[in-house]
Formats: sequence, structure tokens, C-alpha cells
Amino acid sequence: MSSIYERLEPGEIEKRSFAIIDAEVPELRPFQGEEWLVVRRIIHTTADFELLSLVRFHRDAVRKGIEALDRGCLIITDTEMARMGIPLRRMDQLDCRVECYMGDPEVREKALRDKTTRALTAVDFVLHRLDGAIYVVGNAPTALLRLLEWVGKGKCKPALIVGMPVGFVNAAESKELLAEQSDIPYITIAGRKGGSALAASVINQLAEIALREQ
Amino acid sequence: MSSIYERLEPGEIEKRSFAIIDAEVPELRPFQGEEWLVVRRIIHTTADFELLSLVRFHRDAVRKGIEALDRGCLIITDTEMARMGIPLRRMDQLDCRVECYMGDPEVREKALRDKTTRALTAVDFVLHRLDGAIYVVGNAPTALLRLLEWVGKGKCKPALIVGMPVGFVNAAESKELLAEQSDIPYITIAGRKGGSALAASVINQLAEIALREQ
Repeated sequence: MSSIYERLEPGEIEKRSFAIIDAEVPELRPFQGEEWLVVRRIIHTTADFELLSLVRFHRDAVRKGIEALDRGCLIITDTEMARMGIPLRRMDQLDCRVECYMGDPEVREKALRDKTTRALTAVDFVLHRLDGAIYVVGNAPTALLRLLEWVGKGKCKPALIVGMPVGFVNAAESKELLAEQSDIPYITIAGRKGGSALAASVINQLAEIALREQ
Repeated sequence: MSSIYERLEPGEIEKRSFAIIDAEVPELRPFQGEEWLVVRRIIHTTADFELLSLVRFHRDAVRKGIEALDRGCLIITDTEMARMGIPLRRMDQLDCRVECYMGDPEVREKALRDKTTRALTAVDFVLHRLDGAIYVVGNAPTALLRLLEWVGKGKCKPALIVGMPVGFVNAAESKELLAEQSDIPYITIAGRKGGSALAASVINQLAEIALREQ
């Protein structure tokens, strides 16, 4: 046992945490290779082992996500929390930008006028820039549904959707729709669970892999 | 059943969500009154009903927290995510400021020099401003431990500590220490679970109550 007052460097804390999760979820795991690294980081972020049975990957999701990051893709988040959960130290190295339009005055005003969520309005606002981008939904089913609507109509082709809205009204349903389509690679969580921290952690893990390969 | 494409106003989504949680956690609940409102919002943020058995309140925590917000207290968070999880629309009405020093160049530099976490260094950085403040820890056990160290030495007297670091190394232990002391009111989560979104949601609920009472 180590003391809680032992002075640990930040990198060391993460390494130990991953080792604990590895030990508590022994082989054979429901996920292998890079998918396991993503799931492990989601568990690291939440300490919620139930997520092990809830994460869903489109078969190309991890590879397409890494390729997009490697190209320096645009990343759009549906919350400022998710944006803040993606540290710039990795993004800058990859030449990726992380943007969120929830606070944009134009989005705010239009959402109010349309009596809808800012999250939905923000999707429309960036629609013309979504080809090859990664869209991260950590909060709003309305954002994910709108995104799927535009994807269905062929209006945009993101490289990856990390669709993890959390909650009790339409979150589970919106994620089911995401997993029912196969045109756009996705990573999602079945049921009600999700959140900005989880969604951000997926990007961080994909970025770790992308940087390791560079 | 309502359609997922039904156009719901944001306030309506929250109201329906709370009604669902109320229905799924029937009376008699482990928490009553204002404490239940806080726990319900934490569940709303995570869709994790296990938290129902993990939240711990110092008996004065809710009242002291509301009083502090009512006075327009300073709120310090240990992550930018938690800061972003506390919308300004409530804080501005209460005249509260929400600050985070994780990105402060001085904090960054000192943490690097001391080979410790920025979260710990940030506590030292704001120590002289913590009397009557609310400290929100959503991520770093090192921040919570440092805070308790200063509290124990009588160097600061925050109005409330929302101590919810998440993780596998020292998170549970740091929260146990928080709950073992009774000088400073606290709201915490037993075990490994926690996170910035949860911690922020506690502030948002306390602020809701404070504003309703004004």
C-alpha cells in the first residue's frame, strides 16, 4: 500500500489507474486492442464499470477517428464542458481545433427564436464544415438527432460521431438511431448514461494513439 | 409515448427528466427535501442511480452552501470542466464568481517545479481567498487533500467543500478524510465515483434553491 500523501507525478497517477482497471477487468475482455484502450479510458473517467457492457463501436470507428485526428480534423463539441475536457496539449500537436458554438450569440438568438435547444441550432450553424470532422455529443440528444437528420439527407459526412448524450428524455433513443445507421462511424453508449467527460475522454484516447503512431 | 422528434423546450426536458427520476426512486427516499433535490440533480447529470447510495452530506452542507451563494461567494473549481458546468445565468444573478486556476501560467510553472499536480498548486494559489468560499473538486484527490491539510491547520475556512474527485488512486481515500472531519460542511460521494459534471451539478442545484428563495 502506498500512502495517500506520497507525492505522485500526474503521469504516474494515470499509469497506476490504468493498471488497476486492467487488473479488475481481466482477459478475455469484451473489447480488445485499441477499442479496449478507449473503453478503459471511459472507465478511468467515471469509475463506472457498468460502461464496459454499454459502449458500442462502429467497426471502423477507432481507425477512422485516428485517421481524422492525424489529418488535423475539426472537432465540434456540443458543450463547453466537453471542449474543456479535451486538453490542447494533444490537439496542438495534431493540428486539430476543438470548437463549441453553444455560447455563440447567433446560435443563442436563433435557438430562442425557434424555441429549440442551442445544441440543435449549433449543428445547423456548423453544418457546412462537418465533412471529415469529428462531432462530439456529450449532452444533448437534440444535437445528435439533428446531426443524424442531416447525415440521412446526405448533407454532411463527418469522419466520426462520438454520440454520448446522457439523460432521461430521448438520450437512449437518439443513441439507438446512431447505432442503427452505418454510413458514419460512431462510438456510443447504450441506454441513458453518457456525458461530456466520457465523450471527451474518447477523443483524448484516440489522440494518444494517433500521437504514438506519428 | 411522445415522439423523439417532438419539439421540446429546454426547460421542459429538465422537468420531464426530474419527474422520471422522482418516479423511479419512490418515497421513502434515502434523502429528503433539499438534499433529495441535490441528489436528484446528480442522478440527472449521470443517469447513474448507484449514486443514490453514495452521496454523503455534512448535516449543515446544503444550508451553508445556499447561504454562501446568497452572499455572492467565490466559487473555485479544480477543473475548467467544472467551471464550464456552472452556467453564468444563475451565478450572475447571485453575484457569484466561478474561478479556476488550472490554466494559470504561475500555477503551471510552480507545479512543474515542485513535481506535483497543478490542482494542488492551485489550492495554495487561492488559499488566502478561501474563507467563506465554496471549493469544488471534481477531479483531483491532490486538491482535496491539500485543502484538508490547510483546513486542519486552521489556514482557511471555506463555507462548503463539494469534494467529488473521481478515480482509482487516492480518490476514495481523500473523500473519506473529507467526511471524517466536521469543521467544514461538505458534500461528497463515497468510493471511486465522482467527476466535474457531478460536482458542478451540486452547485447548480444549490443555486436554483438560493434563487427561488430570493
